[in-house]
Amino acid sequence: MTDNSQHNRPRVVVVGGGFGGLQAALGLAKADVNVTILDRKNHHTFQPLLYQVALAALSPADIAAPIRSVMRSKKNVEVLIGNVVGFDLERRRVRLEEGDEVPYDYLVIAAGATHSYFGRDDWAQLAPGLKTLEDATEIRRRVLLAFELAERETLLDRQHCPLNFVIVGAGPTGVELAGAIAEISRHVLTQDFTAIDPRRARIILLEGGPRVLPTYTEDLSASAQRQLEQLGVEVRTNTMVTNIEPGVVWVGDEKLESVVTLWAAGVRASSLGEAVGGKIDRSGRVVVNDRLNIEGHPEIFAIGDVAHFEQNGAPVPGVAPVAIQMGQYVAKEIRRRVQNKPSRPFSYWDKGSMATIGRTKGIAQIGKIHLSGVIAWAAWLFIHLIYLIGYRNRFSVLLNWGWQYLSWQSGARLITGSDQLPGWHYHHDTETSEQKKRAAG
Amino acid sequence: MTDNSQHNRPRVVVVGGGFGGLQAALGLAKADVNVTILDRKNHHTFQPLLYQVALAALSPADIAAPIRSVMRSKKNVEVLIGNVVGFDLERRRVRLEEGDEVPYDYLVIAAGATHSYFGRDDWAQLAPGLKTLEDATEIRRRVLLAFELAERETLLDRQHCPLNFVIVGAGPTGVELAGAIAEISRHVLTQDFTAIDPRRARIILLEGGPRVLPTYTEDLSASAQRQLEQLGVEVRTNTMVTNIEPGVVWVGDEKLESVVTLWAAGVRASSLGEAVGGKIDRSGRVVVNDRLNIEGHPEIFAIGDVAHFEQNGAPVPGVAPVAIQMGQYVAKEIRRRVQNKPSRPFSYWDKGSMATIGRTKGIAQIGKIHLSGVIAWAAWLFIHLIYLIGYRNRFSVLLNWGWQYLSWQSGARLITGSDQLPGWHYHHDTETSEQKKRAAG
Repeated sequence: MTDNSQHNRPRVVVVGGGFGGLQAALGLAKADVNVTILDRKNHHTFQPLLYQVALAALSPADIAAPIRSVMRSKKNVEVLIGNVVGFDLERRRVRLEEGDEVPYDYLVIAAGATHSYFGRDDWAQLAPGLKTLEDATEIRRRVLLAFELAERETLLDRQHCPLNFVIVGAGPTGVELAGAIAEISRHVLTQDFTAIDPRRARIILLEGGPRVLPTYTEDLSASAQRQLEQLGVEVRTNTMVTNIEPGVVWVGDEKLESVVTLWAAGVRASSLGEAVGGKIDRSGRVVVNDRLNIEGHPEIFAIGDVAHFEQNGAPVPGVAPVAIQMGQYVAKEIRRRVQNKPSRPFSYWDKGSMATIGRTKGIAQIGKIHLSGVIAWAAWLFIHLIYLIGYRNRFSVLLNWGWQYLSWQSGARLITGSDQLPGWHYHHDTETSEQKKRAAG
Repeated sequence: MTDNSQHNRPRVVVVGGGFGGLQAALGLAKADVNVTILDRKNHHTFQPLLYQVALAALSPADIAAPIRSVMRSKKNVEVLIGNVVGFDLERRRVRLEEGDEVPYDYLVIAAGATHSYFGRDDWAQLAPGLKTLEDATEIRRRVLLAFELAERETLLDRQHCPLNFVIVGAGPTGVELAGAIAEISRHVLTQDFTAIDPRRARIILLEGGPRVLPTYTEDLSASAQRQLEQLGVEVRTNTMVTNIEPGVVWVGDEKLESVVTLWAAGVRASSLGEAVGGKIDRSGRVVVNDRLNIEGHPEIFAIGDVAHFEQNGAPVPGVAPVAIQMGQYVAKEIRRRVQNKPSRPFSYWDKGSMATIGRTKGIAQIGKIHLSGVIAWAAWLFIHLIYLIGYRNRFSVLLNWGWQYLSWQSGARLITGSDQLPGWHYHHDTETSEQKKRAAG
C-alpha cells in the first residue's frame, strides 16, 4: 500500500503463514502481483517437529522462522501481523479485529486447523494439544515439572502422584508424544534424578478406534503398536475417554490417574473456512473444487487443513505435503490467470506418508512399499532434514539441529513460565491400592 | 534423604542455583557432606548474556542449563525445585511453601537479587526489567511487536506510535539493552520491513546520575557514552524518571512517548537476606563477616548479590565474578570445617570488569589498564566464551553459540506468548507536534 508504482497490480492476500500459505506467497515472488501475508504470529512453525520441542529435544527457535525473514528478499510480498475475523466477499475485503480491512483481488485462505475437544472445551486446560510453539513449551513444562515434583515429594519423604502420562488419541501426534515421553523417561532423565526412578513412569496411549495410526494400512498399524510397546508405552485401542478431570482421565467407569494428560484426538479446521461462506464438512473444512476455489468464487482459494478437497472419491488428508502442494498450485494458478493463460486443475501427488515413534522407530508407506522400524525412521529423518533445509535455508544451522537431535541437548530441558502445576499435585495423599498393584506388577 | 548410608554426614543446603550457589555445590561434590540445592527454577541462567536473549540474538536454551544436568555426576548433590519462604534458625530448617521443611547443618544463602522499582511496583508491568529468561522473552516480545505494529499501522495507511525505546538506568544492563536495540534497529531489522524504516527508531537511555556505567572510571564512562552515541543511542544523564504511564515516561514536566520502556535502574537483594535476620544494608543485602557468615551464625553463609561484604572499606559489587569466588570459598571453608582444618578468611580478587556495548564496542578496566572499543569487546567476548565453556561444558555447543552470535540467527527472532501489546498501541491518534519536530530534526 506504500509503493504507488505497483498500485495497479492485482493484490493477493494470503491468510496464514503455515506450510500452504508460505508456499503460495513464495510461489508468487516476482510475479506481477502484490502479496500480503496475514498471520497472528510472526513466525512460521515447522509443525512436524513440534513434538520434539514439547519433549525437550529441540528449542523453539530450531523449528520456527520469522515469516518476515523467509520473505526478506521477496520485494512484492508484505507481512502483516493481525487477527483475521472475517471476510466481506462483496467488497473483497479481509476484516481484521478493530475494524481494519485489507482489500484483495485474490484471496488464499490457509488458516489451518486447531484442536477440537468435541464440544468439551473445558478439557483444553486439563489436556493441552500440540499445534503451536506455546503449546509445545506448555507440554514441556508439564512433563518436566511432573518429574521434578515427584522428586521433590520423595526427597521430602512423601508419596508422589504416580507418574502416569495419558495421551488421548493415537494419530501421528499422539504416537509421537507417547514415544517421546517413553524415551525421555527411559533414557534421558534416568541419570538426572536421585530420589525417583523416571523409568517407572507409565505412558498410556488411548485410542477410540480399533488401531493406532488408523490412516495407515493394518500391518503398519500393528507394527507401530509393537514398536510403541517395545518403548514401554501401554496402548489401549477401542477406548473412549468419557471425562477429564484434574489429575484423572475417565474411561467409562474406570478412573485413570494422570499426572499429565495430553490431547491428540481431534482436529477442527479454522473457523475462517466457515466464515467464507462455502459448504463445510464435519471437521469444519470448506469444500473446494478442482481449482481449490470456493464454489462461485474463482477469486477465493482455500488450501491446506482448512480445505476439503476430494480426489479419487476421498478427501486428501490434512498433512504438510498436501498443504505444500496446494500452496504451490495456487501460486502457479494465480500466475496463469494474471497472464491470461489457461487454467489447470489441481491434483495431489501422494509421495507416501511416514510416522516416527521415538528416535529409531517408525513406519512408512510409500505406494506399495511398507517400511517399519529403523529403516522407516531413517527415511523420516532424511525427508525432514531435506524439508528443513528448504525451509530454514540461509537462516538455519542444520549442523546444530542434527547435533541437538542426536545428543538430546539438555539445554532445551528448560521449564519456563509458571513454576506451578495445578494444586492437586501438592496434596496427593497416597497411591490407591489399584495403583500400587499396578506399580508392583 | 533417601540414602541411609550417608545419614550422618553434615547436610549443606544451598538456596539458589545462580553463579554463587552453583559454585558452592560444585565445590562440595565428593566432599564428606550431603548437598541439597533449592531453587524455584529448574535451570541455571547465564545472566551476563540475558540481554542477548532479550534482543533476539540467542535462544533461551543457549544461555541456560538445567541445574539437574549440571549436577548430574555429583552423587552427593540433590536438586529440589521449591520456593523458599523463610528459615527456622533455632531448629536449623529451611521453610518452603506449603509448610515443608528442609533441615540443614550448613546453610548457604545464594538467593540473588531482583529489580527494585523504588516503591513503585506498579511500574513493573509498564517497564519490565531483565533478570530471568521469562523477562528476556517478554522484552523480546515487546521490542519485536513494536516494530511489527508500526509496520502494520503503516500498511493500513495510519500513523504509528513513534518508535521510541526508553531504557531507564545506564548501568551495565541498561547500556547493553540500549546498544543492542540500536543495533537491531540499525542493522538487523532493516531488510525485514517494507513499510517502515526501523532505523528511524529512537533509543533513549536515561540515567539519574551524572554518567553512564558509574562504577567505572570517568574516562571509561565518557568512552562508553561516545560509543553509545555512535550506535545512535541518545544518552541523557542527570535525568530522573518521575513517572511511568502506558506509552509514556515522565521526566519532571517533560513527557517522553515510549513504545517500549525497559527498567535497568534498581536492584534489590532477595528478601531471604532479610529473612535470615542479620543486619541489612540499603539494598536489602545481609551483612556478612570475613567468613561470609551472618553475625552469630557460623553455620550460615550468604554469598553473591544477597550478601554485603566489605573489602578495603567498600562493599564488593554485585557481579558474577564476586558470586563465583564467594561460592568457591564457601565450598572450601565448609570442607575445612568438616575436616577440622583451620578456617581462613575470604577475600575477593578483582580481575577487572568489562561491559559490552553492541557487537564490537565496549569498555574494560583491568587494574590500571583501561580498554575501549573493539579491543574491550574482544576481551569481553573471550572471557564470556571461556566462562560458557566451563558452565555448559558437555551439554553445550560452543560452535553453535558462536555461529548464532556472529550471524544474528533469525530463528531466535520469535515472538511467543500473547500477540498483544497494551491497547494504547492500537489507538495512537497521531504524532504530537513535538514528536514530529524531533523526527524531522
